[in-house]
Amino acid sequence: MTSYPPWNRIAIVGVGLIGGSIGLALQTRQLADHVIGIGRSKSTLKKALECGVVTEATTDLKTGVQQADLVIVCTPVSQIVPIVKQVATFCKENTLITDAGSTKAALVRELGTTLQNQVRFLGSHPIAGSEASGPQAAMKDLFENRPVVITPTEETVQQDVLHLKQFWQALGCQTVELSPEEHDRILALTSHLPHFVASSLAATIQPDQLTLSGGGYRDTTRIAAGSPHLWTQIFLENREELINAIEQFRQQFDRIEKALEASDSDQLFNFLSEAQQNRNAMGN
Amino acid sequence: MTSYPPWNRIAIVGVGLIGGSIGLALQTRQLADHVIGIGRSKSTLKKALECGVVTEATTDLKTGVQQADLVIVCTPVSQIVPIVKQVATFCKENTLITDAGSTKAALVRELGTTLQNQVRFLGSHPIAGSEASGPQAAMKDLFENRPVVITPTEETVQQDVLHLKQFWQALGCQTVELSPEEHDRILALTSHLPHFVASSLAATIQPDQLTLSGGGYRDTTRIAAGSPHLWTQIFLENREELINAIEQFRQQFDRIEKALEASDSDQLFNFLSEAQQNRNAMGN
Repeated sequence: MTSYPPWNRIAIVGVGLIGGSIGLALQTRQLADHVIGIGRSKSTLKKALECGVVTEATTDLKTGVQQADLVIVCTPVSQIVPIVKQVATFCKENTLITDAGSTKAALVRELGTTLQNQVRFLGSHPIAGSEASGPQAAMKDLFENRPVVITPTEETVQQDVLHLKQFWQALGCQTVELSPEEHDRILALTSHLPHFVASSLAATIQPDQLTLSGGGYRDTTRIAAGSPHLWTQIFLENREELINAIEQFRQQFDRIEKALEASDSDQLFNFLSEAQQNRNAMGN
Repeated sequence: MTSYPPWNRIAIVGVGLIGGSIGLALQTRQLADHVIGIGRSKSTLKKALECGVVTEATTDLKTGVQQADLVIVCTPVSQIVPIVKQVATFCKENTLITDAGSTKAALVRELGTTLQNQVRFLGSHPIAGSEASGPQAAMKDLFENRPVVITPTEETVQQDVLHLKQFWQALGCQTVELSPEEHDRILALTSHLPHFVASSLAATIQPDQLTLSGGGYRDTTRIAAGSPHLWTQIFLENREELINAIEQFRQQFDRIEKALEASDSDQLFNFLSEAQQNRNAMGN
């Protein structure tokens, strides 16, 4: 039995798919008696209460976080820094704040590790999601067996790492520790680059040609249906590492195109075999 | 009720996923009493008989096709030309031969429309499939509501077009007529380019980084698990049109990369919105 940190009152800022699913999982697994949803939109909070993803809800950040044992900021990435700064002025001394954002280095550079009143920030990135959004899309098992990256810095208190690990593990996640920079470098390749490529492909092919497309186009471009607003932010937050990842993709793309131009069937076959082998490492 | 051509004995050369599914659909829909499977491997033919995808099976091409009313060549693309030429020497006068290959212009250039003994070739491309292969993967509903392209030339007899349309419609397909060149131009974009891009992406990301990948990578690279052998052939058969499609992809890819390098959030947002709109035209 994994132990759970002494957190009974958890505040979630932003009760969309991710925040809502955390709230649902916390209640299903009976890990906290109070799950407070905080948001700007009354109608979203109303939906969150109706769907049972939170036990309480408020549009007032101060009211929402002042008694919380843990605050999780689940807003779009561009809002994380200003919200964490505000939360730090409202919450109890020594409270831990985490997030669920897709990029980390820029956040941590701006926020640091220790804020005022010994309030501390320690980043989390649960690698789970879908194209759906809003509290009504929340799922109690969204995090089950999914990896979550925790991104401590040299200043991070070891007990915070331990507690945050226990927290995510209690939600069913497998925890991985990486520096914020290492997190961004890997995610640029495994998440941001696929989105960048899928969107480029979707932009290339016009809707009137889609009658003659099949499962290949459908799967390859599926994530291009994701929110342009969110992904613009993610790309800009992780701009440098994404540019590096694009460079690595271009090297492979150029290599296979050269083989095609030269009608070199051996090189084409070897390239496709290598790609197949990499892909098979994941399973369907 | 759509009428069905006067074909009761259908020969299928190559009883893998596509050939096997045609055989299964013909029998399920009671469209032909004799479905003759022809292949080089006795064990594959044995499986095909066991799975009930054909009613008879033989490794001898002549025996298999000599009484057939329609011959469908469902082999990998590089074998279609030599096999159609052989079939023409063995089958009855006036027989129609079709195929299920993913590329068309090179085939038709080499084969022409009328072969010896008034035997005629008219290309088909059912746009359906999966990563699975072999007769055991055959599905009776693989073609239901799927598009199939029929590629007549100026020399094609109109009755053959009508009969072949009726044939595929009887299997549940929606038929589309395109010239072989137009078929290859569109499929380069909607099918071959996605495979090319997915394989480049899979080649870029190493297996040890996949622990931190999610649904985005999984969907975007799924088709990279397809057969390197088959796809090498398809790429080479449709080399020129694929190179054109790659050029169109590069224009979009360069455009979004420039926006990223310039940290231009408006341009990034507009690009991603356009891609989202195109993708939404297909549905999930």
